[in-house]
Amino acid sequence: MEQIFSKLKFLTHGEGFIDITHDLNLFIKKNNFNSGIFNLTSLHTSCSLTINENADPNVLMDLKKYIQSIVPYNSYLTLSRKREEIFYKHFQEGADDMPAHIKTSLTNACLSLSFQEEKIMLGTWQSVYLWEHRFDQKERIINVHIIGEKSQNIYN
Amino acid sequence: MEQIFSKLKFLTHGEGFIDITHDLNLFIKKNNFNSGIFNLTSLHTSCSLTINENADPNVLMDLKKYIQSIVPYNSYLTLSRKREEIFYKHFQEGADDMPAHIKTSLTNACLSLSFQEEKIMLGTWQSVYLWEHRFDQKERIINVHIIGEKSQNIYN
Amino acid sequence: MEQIFSKLKFLTHGEGFIDITHDLNLFIKKNNFNSGIFNLTSLHTSCSLTINENADPNVLMDLKKYIQSIVPYNSYLTLSRKREEIFYKHFQEGADDMPAHIKTSLTNACLSLSFQEEKIMLGTWQSVYLWEHRFDQKERIINVHIIGEKSQNIYN
Repeated sequence: MEQIFSKLKFLTHGEGFIDITHDLNLFIKKNNFNSGIFNLTSLHTSCSLTINENADPNVLMDLKKYIQSIVPYNSYLTLSRKREEIFYKHFQEGADDMPAHIKTSLTNACLSLSFQEEKIMLGTWQSVYLWEHRFDQKERIINVHIIGEKSQNIYN
Repeated sequence: MEQIFSKLKFLTHGEGFIDITHDLNLFIKKNNFNSGIFNLTSLHTSCSLTINENADPNVLMDLKKYIQSIVPYNSYLTLSRKREEIFYKHFQEGADDMPAHIKTSLTNACLSLSFQEEKIMLGTWQSVYLWEHRFDQKERIINVHIIGEKSQNIYN
Repeated sequence: MEQIFSKLKFLTHGEGFIDITHDLNLFIKKNNFNSGIFNLTSLHTSCSLTINENADPNVLMDLKKYIQSIVPYNSYLTLSRKREEIFYKHFQEGADDMPAHIKTSLTNACLSLSFQEEKIMLGTWQSVYLWEHRFDQKERIINVHIIGEKSQNIYN
């Protein structure tokens, strides 16, 4: 059993999802691991890691719309009066910042995934997503950590 | 430190909970592991894995009712007009499908549990549940993966 | 690769957050581990483990207020009629008990963290919190479990 630590960087473009499954599998292969645990930690408090459907892109759109509907922006800043008024005390970093912290708490900052034969073990329609909750473009760093067994294939 | 991978299958019967703690402990014992990490991944995007109370069955009923109240079904399909109308874009697989994806995102698709002396380490009133979010009977596959140490008992 | 199991106890003081990051790092150092996986399990169904911002204390206050707003107390007991009336079937342990089970389900009962050079790997503004959901003072037990490599430093 061996372990390896590293960081993966992703550029996000406002609220939404980036499928990182391929990058995770590439990291496994590059480091010549065959099977083990792949532990992911988002080093930020305003984006999440989540597993969801990769078949119909509308699923992700609905998911984003849904979470926006239960975690309103700071109306003190947005002046949107359509919903019940929300006045977060933490508003100094923008109307989308406190909602992003809440959304992260309702989802996950870290994931512990199993992999075998150099691939994250997921269902046919599952992908691992980095879920950005802020409006602006951000560089996000995911801490990656594997504990597992190396591949036997000497040509790898 | 050794590892083992397998899959456990469970038949669900509509929205609700199946206590899988006993099956997990059985898997540990059968494979002669004593202590380690037990990593679970639901290979589906419309059911979850969760830890909750196993004493009063009303807790699970309230939990189910609560999540139904914050994640409405697709009113375009159910024609329920009691709540604010919800029109998910992803509706082709039934009124309960998109809500199931959302409920999965609000809970967990994977769990990383510790076990010692051949038993998952939980509090007195805790169980591990497979939480079905769809209406129909489904066969659900949970990927199970242990990294840990074998039992010394040669009679096992 | 070695492993160690133990329990950490924390005294909570009603709904709110206790930063346990320092205690986790102390546990790593005391047991002479250098790097690995740190698996945490709350042995209770009415408090959570969560990662969130440690810079502005208002973030935690807003987070608490938010979750209170989406998971109402049992109005059958609190007689608060401001919100839509909620009558949980599980009410015998107090107005805050069923809401605490729900809040735990919406957040996390367990966390799997990576650590390197004797420290949990987190972003600059992240801490690991024990999130108490009950009104009363409680003693909470967190099961701690490390799989990892020992420090080389013989003076530790």
